[in-house]
Order: sequence, then structure tokens, then C-alpha cells
Amino acid sequence: MLSLIGNHLAAIRECARENDRAGAFPFDVFTGFRKDGVLGATVPRELGGLGVTSLYDVCLALLTVAEADASTALALHMQLSRGLTLTYEWQHGDAARQQLAERLLRGMGSGAAVVCTTVKDAGAGPPTSLTPDPVGGWRLTGRKTLASMAPIATHFVVSARTEEPGRPPAQAAAVVSGQTAGLTVLDNWDGLGMRASGSVDIVLEDCHVPEGDVFLRGAVDAHDDAQLAGRTVSSVTMLGIYTGIAQAARDYTVSTLARRGRTPAGAKALVAETEARLYALRTTVGAALGTADYLSYEYAGDPAVRGRRMMFAFQRAKLMVNKLAPDIVADCLTVIGGASYAGANPLSRLYRDVRAGSFMHPFTYPDAVEYLSTEAVETGRYDG
Amino acid sequence: MLSLIGNHLAAIRECARENDRAGAFPFDVFTGFRKDGVLGATVPRELGGLGVTSLYDVCLALLTVAEADASTALALHMQLSRGLTLTYEWQHGDAARQQLAERLLRGMGSGAAVVCTTVKDAGAGPPTSLTPDPVGGWRLTGRKTLASMAPIATHFVVSARTEEPGRPPAQAAAVVSGQTAGLTVLDNWDGLGMRASGSVDIVLEDCHVPEGDVFLRGAVDAHDDAQLAGRTVSSVTMLGIYTGIAQAARDYTVSTLARRGRTPAGAKALVAETEARLYALRTTVGAALGTADYLSYEYAGDPAVRGRRMMFAFQRAKLMVNKLAPDIVADCLTVIGGASYAGANPLSRLYRDVRAGSFMHPFTYPDAVEYLSTEAVETGRYDG
Amino acid sequence: MLSLIGNHLAAIRECARENDRAGAFPFDVFTGFRKDGVLGATVPRELGGLGVTSLYDVCLALLTVAEADASTALALHMQLSRGLTLTYEWQHGDAARQQLAERLLRGMGSGAAVVCTTVKDAGAGPPTSLTPDPVGGWRLTGRKTLASMAPIATHFVVSARTEEPGRPPAQAAAVVSGQTAGLTVLDNWDGLGMRASGSVDIVLEDCHVPEGDVFLRGAVDAHDDAQLAGRTVSSVTMLGIYTGIAQAARDYTVSTLARRGRTPAGAKALVAETEARLYALRTTVGAALGTADYLSYEYAGDPAVRGRRMMFAFQRAKLMVNKLAPDIVADCLTVIGGASYAGANPLSRLYRDVRAGSFMHPFTYPDAVEYLSTEAVETGRYDG
Amino acid sequence: MLSLIGNHLAAIRECARENDRAGAFPFDVFTGFRKDGVLGATVPRELGGLGVTSLYDVCLALLTVAEADASTALALHMQLSRGLTLTYEWQHGDAARQQLAERLLRGMGSGAAVVCTTVKDAGAGPPTSLTPDPVGGWRLTGRKTLASMAPIATHFVVSARTEEPGRPPAQAAAVVSGQTAGLTVLDNWDGLGMRASGSVDIVLEDCHVPEGDVFLRGAVDAHDDAQLAGRTVSSVTMLGIYTGIAQAARDYTVSTLARRGRTPAGAKALVAETEARLYALRTTVGAALGTADYLSYEYAGDPAVRGRRMMFAFQRAKLMVNKLAPDIVADCLTVIGGASYAGANPLSRLYRDVRAGSFMHPFTYPDAVEYLSTEAVETGRYDG
Repeated sequence: MLSLIGNHLAAIRECARENDRAGAFPFDVFTGFRKDGVLGATVPRELGGLGVTSLYDVCLALLTVAEADASTALALHMQLSRGLTLTYEWQHGDAARQQLAERLLRGMGSGAAVVCTTVKDAGAGPPTSLTPDPVGGWRLTGRKTLASMAPIATHFVVSARTEEPGRPPAQAAAVVSGQTAGLTVLDNWDGLGMRASGSVDIVLEDCHVPEGDVFLRGAVDAHDDAQLAGRTVSSVTMLGIYTGIAQAARDYTVSTLARRGRTPAGAKALVAETEARLYALRTTVGAALGTADYLSYEYAGDPAVRGRRMMFAFQRAKLMVNKLAPDIVADCLTVIGGASYAGANPLSRLYRDVRAGSFMHPFTYPDAVEYLSTEAVETGRYDG
Repeated sequence: MLSLIGNHLAAIRECARENDRAGAFPFDVFTGFRKDGVLGATVPRELGGLGVTSLYDVCLALLTVAEADASTALALHMQLSRGLTLTYEWQHGDAARQQLAERLLRGMGSGAAVVCTTVKDAGAGPPTSLTPDPVGGWRLTGRKTLASMAPIATHFVVSARTEEPGRPPAQAAAVVSGQTAGLTVLDNWDGLGMRASGSVDIVLEDCHVPEGDVFLRGAVDAHDDAQLAGRTVSSVTMLGIYTGIAQAARDYTVSTLARRGRTPAGAKALVAETEARLYALRTTVGAALGTADYLSYEYAGDPAVRGRRMMFAFQRAKLMVNKLAPDIVADCLTVIGGASYAGANPLSRLYRDVRAGSFMHPFTYPDAVEYLSTEAVETGRYDG
Repeated sequence: MLSLIGNHLAAIRECARENDRAGAFPFDVFTGFRKDGVLGATVPRELGGLGVTSLYDVCLALLTVAEADASTALALHMQLSRGLTLTYEWQHGDAARQQLAERLLRGMGSGAAVVCTTVKDAGAGPPTSLTPDPVGGWRLTGRKTLASMAPIATHFVVSARTEEPGRPPAQAAAVVSGQTAGLTVLDNWDGLGMRASGSVDIVLEDCHVPEGDVFLRGAVDAHDDAQLAGRTVSSVTMLGIYTGIAQAARDYTVSTLARRGRTPAGAKALVAETEARLYALRTTVGAALGTADYLSYEYAGDPAVRGRRMMFAFQRAKLMVNKLAPDIVADCLTVIGGASYAGANPLSRLYRDVRAGSFMHPFTYPDAVEYLSTEAVETGRYDG
Repeated sequence: MLSLIGNHLAAIRECARENDRAGAFPFDVFTGFRKDGVLGATVPRELGGLGVTSLYDVCLALLTVAEADASTALALHMQLSRGLTLTYEWQHGDAARQQLAERLLRGMGSGAAVVCTTVKDAGAGPPTSLTPDPVGGWRLTGRKTLASMAPIATHFVVSARTEEPGRPPAQAAAVVSGQTAGLTVLDNWDGLGMRASGSVDIVLEDCHVPEGDVFLRGAVDAHDDAQLAGRTVSSVTMLGIYTGIAQAARDYTVSTLARRGRTPAGAKALVAETEARLYALRTTVGAALGTADYLSYEYAGDPAVRGRRMMFAFQRAKLMVNKLAPDIVADCLTVIGGASYAGANPLSRLYRDVRAGSFMHPFTYPDAVEYLSTEAVETGRYDG
């Protein structure tokens, strides 16, 4: 996967600035990814993919792409993480889930399917809901936001809650083809950063979803720590994106100083601290991914313990990433000075992109404070 | 001055986002400032201005404008600080300098003159130079950058070095009318932030400058601590701009939390620290401005001591401003979460604008480290 | 007051290290303070004191003492702040309170009375209580801790709650002579720092307190924001102590570097940041004290508003003091290196002493987070 | 080794406080270590030791001991790291070095030899020197400081420079028996922390050293990057000590909060950040040790490259350790509040001990700034 990606880095780097300015999605890059099989990297070989299963490897791939352009990495993450979680469904789900997962994975493996996952409801409206369709199957209605990679998606996996008369609402994920009547992909992404990630809103108006195209999960209010594993797998590789941003800022800064030929005292101190922080950032992320891989594939104990341990490592690493990566980028701007403030300077994009890390789910900073402090103090489970 | 400015705040606030997006200068706002006399605020009453002399008051005015839009404050700073330094020339300069200063001040007082000062040479070309013009007077050639407020300037005060056969080069500031042949104001500002400040480049090609329109200073290599006073007066009020940005971020955040109605633990900690930092930011800036006022207007001792004391207080405050203000804004984004990452959210502009503080002269961070540590250790002059 | 204190600084400095090692109280220094009238500094002139009323001035005096020895300053604070609050009682209390306050103040003014105030109950026992004494007056029972300056105190002001049959418990402060039967001053102070402050425990076993020797306050559960003013006056001047510690660390470091003659890059960066932080620390503390003085003596509005504004300024400053002062000291140790780790090096005492700031009431860090965030978000009272 | 150490942890923990107070060396603990073979842990099996070669394992052992008492770990580090470097001499040195190393290692393996290494010269005297002894061999004169574990040492490895007529001075390490005439072990250690580590001064007055008991190294001014490997091996395992201190602070804090039963908002935020920092601390240290092991035992390339890579990883990790570990301990004090300020509270010892990390060689903070920034900017060797 890394060598396939390597072929695209120059192209990604080249269009990064222009797409950032325009808030435009890098369509050509993803066409290349699709042709090379990058979009099927995490699909099992039997289903036509490259069979990458290691979260560490996916994280490293995203890190490498993010060094060239973080928006591209964020969009690519959508497809790669979906491959991983669908593979889990294909291997461990019941027959219905296996079938649905296999259909999507085969499409992803062949390059026919590009799958955008949307979790967050947009705005203040009612939550996105699945209600029984009188003709059978479901009707999906709502509005989703931050649907990265949506501009090229052929399918959408949409989080929703079921609303059925006489039954408690349940969590679900509906698979919807991009052709479905009632589905509109807006072109409304205009963020502070990650501007080329196509993180638009999706409007769903009474979209029909066939019976078999919904992954049903537990009751909305049920609390099942085993699910923390899936949530970790879905998101933990994104830590590589912010690491790649920090690495790119450091590399640009160090090479600029080398060209300038003289490093004043204040810059030396910041460079030394940047080296130390980047080292800590890379090793912390590496450790969290190693833990996630171990717990995903080798640990055979209690699924609730697995979920909690994965999430606890993930969240500790994430809190540090969201501290270290922005600090590194900010110090790089301080070292480079006024030149870095020009829109055309790569640091000015990295400064905006790196800030997205705080908002990445799970968890936001306040939720992470609650989660980590409760785990540590109340449950006392993790002493090391 | 504050009440005059108050009349414009709603208009400034209203166009801030759109001008930021487009990188457009707020022409209408400055038309209003000119009509109201705001642009002559720091011109002596005798010369048609409002007679504001207190650096503290100017800083507070810029703070108030910056709460609505920092770009506008940065551009306004150009005119207000020029009024202060020209008034000093008018009061203490020799006859030639008095005459030149008076001419400009009368223009600024009547609203006819808008004076943009440019210090920094653009790019890697030769330094901007004043050479003797065979027809008398000087010829000015070079390229300047970060000339905020240039889009509406009627005059430019351009730093340059004289190059005369048989004489050592001297520092000078040439006053050039915007109509001068050879002067071109580019429309090339495209910064990470401060996008509506019109901080463009100015190209000067053999511009004729009359003999009397140049302020001559000492030799280029001469070191005169007395000059630190003028450099402080020119720039210290800008500390208000970054204080205003931090205040705006805090106010938006606190009022948003109040509307949300529940503040989680992690947000409480950040809000408390934001309150404390903002308090320190305001009081530190206030103290530096109070010191600057005292030394400018009441201190009657050694001019070199005055210069050093003004600059030492200014640089200590500036280092803290460039630490506290970005930290406040970043924590506000963390508290508000994903919503703050939308281009339309005020925090996303404040996050970009606040970063300009590090690059503001004098000094950049590495230069400030050198300056402050040398003053403290080697000269031992300032024990308190 | 400052010039009186100046006479003692050399002596304070000289015995600081030895008293710190031994955890011994500086009896001689306080004998000198008593003779000179320093212990009566905040007693009105009419009652024999120096009549200092300005909180700012008291803070500056404590800062100056703390530069020589923070423990001495902490102990001195006890007497000086008591003078201030008793003066308030003497001026604004009812006849009974005036009488009690006057008696104590006259003693403090003449040097006969040294008054130690104890607020915090020790350990896990029942709260210190005042119960009616069958012979009239009260009986005081309990155990207090952190009673700085107790080794030389002639009187103790002891916070307690009344417990009377048929009445709700009330807050009270009992004045107890050091001769009272049942009162024992332990010699049990052994802190990480502030080791010469004599912050021992006081045991009270059925001590008789005459009827008139108790200041009664409101019900235990009553919440009266006006009381925040008194709590601020009692403690806000302590901010000077931590400022003095930071100043001493900086002065030692800068003069050591000057002697060494070469300042490496990493040290330059830390020195520059220390200068900036110390400037912010001094100006922030100065501002909070200025506000406290204004609200104490000039503000004539709603007492609840006064209390809240005093405490809000105090707490914001305190949070910054507890961030800036330890950071300054820690960076000074880093700059000086291994030499600072010797027990005989002044920095090793400052490093321990400065940490006491976080525990100083009101408030601890968690309480300050709650207080400041609630004030800011929920009440929205303070926009600037 | 870990299980052997495990047997002693309760005893170490028990006497930690009393030894810290008294500045006393834990003789009994080291008698136990000697009996169990812990003092020979890093001696090859063939020479009577346990044959531990992994730096990671030694670091983990020191971490575990440091959780109980950091002073003990610091003293133990002396012996364990000497075993590692002597084993290297035994395996790779010339015949003379092999013989000397083997003699010491056999002593360490049998428990007969306890070897204290001293690098730093004390005070301002002339550097410690080896001059030719007229009777053959050398004469060693000088004064060394910070010789941890000296109170029980049977041998000393003393850094010195040779001074021979007609030859350039060379670096050397002389092995001196504790019985040697002219050698005095002072009892003068009185540090801010690490008070039970016995880090005393050693006075050497014309001590005779046999010809074969000196390891000669290169010229004093020679710069050989290959030597960075040895310097890393000698010191990198100490990172575990500061990690153990941070872990102990966190464990005490979390268990205290669990007992208190309610965690306020401000404490939650600090606990969450402590968890994240400790995770980063452990993973960063683990990575640096893994790199050191790989380069020590598996890397077969250019010795200068090996030296530089080992040191670059070590120094980046060390800078983070010296940031993260003190921050963790300080935040734990803030969370626990006034109780942690009592001398008897474990946090008050950890607060003093953790500060030693900044002074540990190589390098101090200013030297690390110079080293890391130069490596990064000027040599550009390390891009990842």
C-alpha cells in the first residue's frame, strides 16, 4: 500500500495548495487511487482487495499522505477505515450482515464502490431516523454533516436510529446508494482547514432502504463497552493524519533554516523542542496503534475489556496528539516568521489543518476529559 | 475617539466575515472614519485633529475595533501611530522636519491625507534606496511589503537607505504621494489572516522625492538606543489588537456556553484558564502602555535610557501577548468544538488573525529572545 | 513600612537557609518587627499603628520580604491582614464588634498583641465548635492546622461554628488568648516548603471564651456574596509572596549568568521567557491589588457586587500567579543546572516554597475552576 | 531481574521516607540486592552475573524501583549501567581492557565488587588528572562530585585526563579500589531531592593507580561520534527513573481521588491530562530504549552513525521526559491540594526527586538545545 501511495505523492502535493484555496476535492488523485487499488487496500484479498489488516499500517499510510496533503488523507481515511470495519462484519457478523458487508467489500475491492460514512447529524433538526417503509424495508430521513469524501462516494453508510411503533429505538447504520431518490449531496463544505476533504452535508428525504441494507445495533440507550472496539478501529488511524501534518511542518522548517544558514538562539530552542515533541508524537501514536492491532487481532478475552482497553489507549494518545501536533506547527510558524503567514506558504495551510484534530470523534476534548478521568478514578482498571 | 469609533462598530462587525473571505479592504468603514475625524484622532488639535496623545487610549481604541475586526484595527493603526510619531517630529524636530510633519498632520487632520508607512523590504532584491536625483531631490527605488491600509493611502512613508557617492549610507524615511510617477500599489495581499487589512506590496521605480520630503536619520550602522522610543511608539499600541482578538474569542465562547446551558468539566477548566489568561493579558498590556505613556510624556531623563526602558517593557509584554492571545483563542476553539471549525464561525477568523502577532515588528520571537536575554544578563539594567 | 522592613532584610536573608533546613521559626526577626512597629503597620494611627490601609502597599511589603524569605513573609502576612480586617470591623461593625476589634488593634499597635488566625480544621475530626459555656460565654473545642506565626502568637482568631440547642449553627470567629487553659500550640510543622513559617496545629480543648470575644457571622449555610470582600482582603496580599519568590529566582539566575559570562542558546530562550512572565506576573498582581483597593475604599455600591468583583479579580490573578511563579522558578533551575539542586542553593528553597501558592485559600485550583467558570458562563456578569 | 527486585520493593518503599528526611543511604536494601545477585544483573553469565543485556529491561527495572524510591533506583543505576559498559569492553576491547573489565565484572558477579562511577569534577579546582607515578603506573588527583552509591562502593571508576610531559592530554577512566591511600569518600550529599542516593563527593589525593587499571580513551579534544553510543548506554536507562516517579505520583493521586469519592471539574481535567502525558512518557521512553537496544546489539553499520542515532533518540526522549514527568508530578500536587505539601506525603518527595532529571548528563537543557538543533538543521541527518 505504501509503495502504491508513493506513486501519487508528488501529484497530491502539487494540487494541495490550489484545492485548499478553492475548497475543491482532489478528484484526479482519487481516480488514481481507484485505478491502483489504493481504495481497496483494506479489503480482504479474497474479495479483490490488498488485504491490509494492520491499523498501524493504515495509520502510516495516512501519515504519509498527510505529509503531502491532510485533506486527501482525511478523505482516504473514510474508505480505508470502512474496509476494516466491514471486514470485521464479514468475518464475525451473522449471515445477513456478512452478506451486506461482502457486497460492499467486493465493490470496494474492484474499485466500483467508494463508501462514505456519516455519523454526525447536521444542525438542530430531529435526529436522522429509519422508519418502516409501507412497501417494505425502511425510509431514511435526516441531514448529515462532515461527510468527507462524499463528492466521489458511490455509497453512504448513514448512522440513524430506528423508530418503529411499539419498539424501543435502536442504533443502526443504513447503506444507501448514491443514486437513491431523495439523497442529495450538498457542495457546502467551507472549513477553516481540511478544505479539500469534501466534508459536505448529505440531505436524506424519505430515501428507501431495502430491508437487508441496514446494520442494526443495540438499543439507543444501551451501553456496551464491546462497541468501543469498533469505534476505535473506525477512528484511531486518523492519528496518523495529524502526525503527518506535524512532520511536514517540521521538515519544511528545518530545511528552510538550513537554507538560511544561521539559526538564532530563540529558533534553536524551538527547533530542539519540536524535535522532542515530534519524537514523542510519533512514538505515542505508534504505541496506540500497536495496542489497537494487538487487541483487534490477537487478544481473545472479554470483548468489553478489549473495547475499553482499545479506547483508553486511543484517547490518551489522542489527547497528546491534539496537544503536540498544534504546538509543533505553531512553533514552526514562530521560527519561520512572517513568511509563514502568506497564504501560499505551506505552514499557513498546516496551521489550519492541524486544528481539526480536536474535533475528531471520538472524543472531543470535554468528552475525553470525562472519559479518561472516570476510567482512571472510578474504575481504577488501568494502572499502567 | 472611543465614542466616535463606537458608531462604526456594528458596520465593522457586519462586513468582517465577507471581507475576510474575499481578502477585501473595508473601504466604506474607512470612508466613515475619515468623515468622523477618526483618521485624525492623533493629530494635534491645532492642526485639525482630535489631539489624542495617550498611547494607552490609542491601544484601547484599537482593542475595541479589533473585537469587531482585527484587520480593520491593523489598518487603522497605521494612521493613528503615524499621527503620534509625526506629532513628535512637529514638536521636537528641526525646522525642516517640523515643516514636513506639519504638512502631513494638517492633511491627516482635515481628512485629506491617509498615510501608509512601509518598513519591510519585499523579497530578496536590493534594499530600497534613495539616490540623489540629478534634477535635485531624491530618487526612490525598491519594493516594500506588508503595507497595511495602502489601498486607501494618499501618502506613503517609505523606509530607505540613502546612497550618495562619498557618504556613508544613512537611514531615511521618504514621504511619497500616492500620485507619484513610478509608484504602484499592488493588490497582492493574501495572508493566512488579517485578510482585510490591505497589507499589500508597493513597487517604487525611480520615484522622484523632493529634497524636503525626506526624514533623515543616523548612519545605517549607528546604534542609538534613543531611537527605541520611536520604534516603541510606532508599534506598542498594536498589542491592543491581539488583546481585542482574545477578548472577542472569549466573549463568543462564554455566551455560546451560556446558551448551551451545560458546561462539561473539561470546558470549565479551559474557561477558568481563559478568564485568568485574559485578565493577565489585559493587565500586562495596560501596564506596558502606561509605562510607554509615562516615558513618552513625563520622563525627562537620558533619551537612551528612555528608549531602552520603553522597549524592554514593550518586548516583555509582547512576548506574553504572543503566548496568551493564541492560547486563549485555541482553547476557545477546543471548548466550542467542531462548530468553530466552520469558515463562517467567528472563531475560525480569530484563530488565523491572532497568529499575526508573532510576526509584528519589533521584534520577532528570535530577535526578542536575543534582545531580552542580553538586556537582562549582560546589561543588568532592569532588576524589576 | 517599606523602609522599616528594609532594615530587616539582610537579617531575614541571612537566617533563611538555616531556618528552612531546621523548620525553625525566625523568632529574632519578629522580635525586630515588633520593636520597629512593623507588626502594627496595618493598625490605624489612632490606635497606635502606622495606619497603612492600602492592600497594594501590604502586598508590596510582603513581596519585598518574600524576596529574602517567603516563610517570613507568610507569617508576617498573618498579622498584617488581620490588622486590615479588624480595622474594617472597628470602622463598620456594631458596638460589640468595634470594642473587640479596638482591643485587639490597640494591642497590635503597641506591640503587645500578635494575632494568629486559623481557618482550616485539621484532620478528619468533628468541626471546631463553640458551645454555650454553663458559666457564661462559650466553650471552644477542635483542632486547627496551618496556623502560620503561631509560635509567637499572643492571641488566636479561630474560625468555628456555633452549636446551640434550638438554633441553627452559625459561623463565628473566636478570639482566644494564648494563655487560655486548654489551648495547645503544637510544634508539628514539617512542610515541603515554607518551613520557617511556623504553620503548626492548634489544639483547643474546652477553652473558655468570654461572650464578647466572638465575632458572630451568618448561618453556616447562608451564602452572602458581600463576604467575598472580607475573604479577598484577608488573602489577596499573599499574591505578593509568590511574586517575590519568582523575583528572587530570576535575580539569582540572571546574576549567576552574568558572572558565568556566556549564555547558551537554550538559556537565552528561558531567560527571555522568564523576563516576560515575571513582567506579566507583577503587572497582573498589581492590577488585582489596585482593584481590591478601589473596591475596598472607594466603591460605594452594592456590597454583593463589591464582593464578587473583588473575588473575581483575585481569583483570575491567583490562577495566573500559580501558573507563572512556579514556571519561572522551574525554568531558573533548568538554566542554572545541577548547582541549583544542592540544598544550599537558594533556588532549591524557592522551588519548594513557590509550590505553596496552589494551596492558598481561597481557592484551591479545583474550586477556582468551578468559581471562575460559573461566574463567567452562568452569571455573565463580568465581560471585561 | 524484575522478580528479584520485586522481593525488595516493600522494604524499599518502607524506608524511603525516613532516608529521604535524613539524607541517609539505604544500606540494608543494597545488602539485599547484593545477596540476591541484583547487583550482578548486567554481568554476563559466564562471569557470574544474570546476563541481562537489554537496556529496555534495565530501564524497566529502574522504573519499578523508582516507583518505590527514586534515590534507590539512581544508586542502583550506577552498578547496572557499569555492568553494561564493562561487558562491552570485555567483548570488544583489546587484551588489556578485556582483562581489566573481566576482573571488575567477576567481582560484580560474585557480589564482591560494587562499582561507583564518577564523571563530574567538583567545584572550581583544576580538572582531575592522571600523572605518571615515578614508581610506575599513575597518580590520580582531583575531586569528584555526584558519585551516587559511593557509600557502599568497593571500587570507583574515575574520569580524568592524563597529563604526561610531551604528550597531548587524553581522556581516561581510572579504576581505584576504595581502600586506596589518598581516597576519601565524603558524607556531604544534601540535595533538594534524591537525598538517599548517596551522591557524595570523592577526594583523590595522589592516589596510586596501577598501569593496567586505567581505560585510556582518545585525546581530550578529539571528537568521535562513536563514543556517543557508550555515553547513551551509560545513561539512557535513567529515563526509567523519572518515568517511575511520574507513575508513582499518578497512582497515588488516582487512588486518593477514588477514596475521596468525588472528583471536581478542575481535577478531572488534570487527571485526564495526566493519563495522556503518562502514556506519552512511557511510550516515548520505551521507544528510545528499543532503539538503543537495536543499535547496541543488532546494528552492524558505521559506529559513528550508530553513536549519533542512539544519542539523537535519547536526547529527544530526555527532553520530553524532563517536560512530562515534572508536569505530571506538579499537576498531581495541584489535584491533591494542601495535603500533598506535608513533608510526610509521598508527593512532596516525588516533587523534589523528579527535578533531578533536568541535570542528568548527557545533556543539560542548554546543551540538548544546541545538540538537537544542530543535528536537525545543520546535519539534516534525521528526517524521521
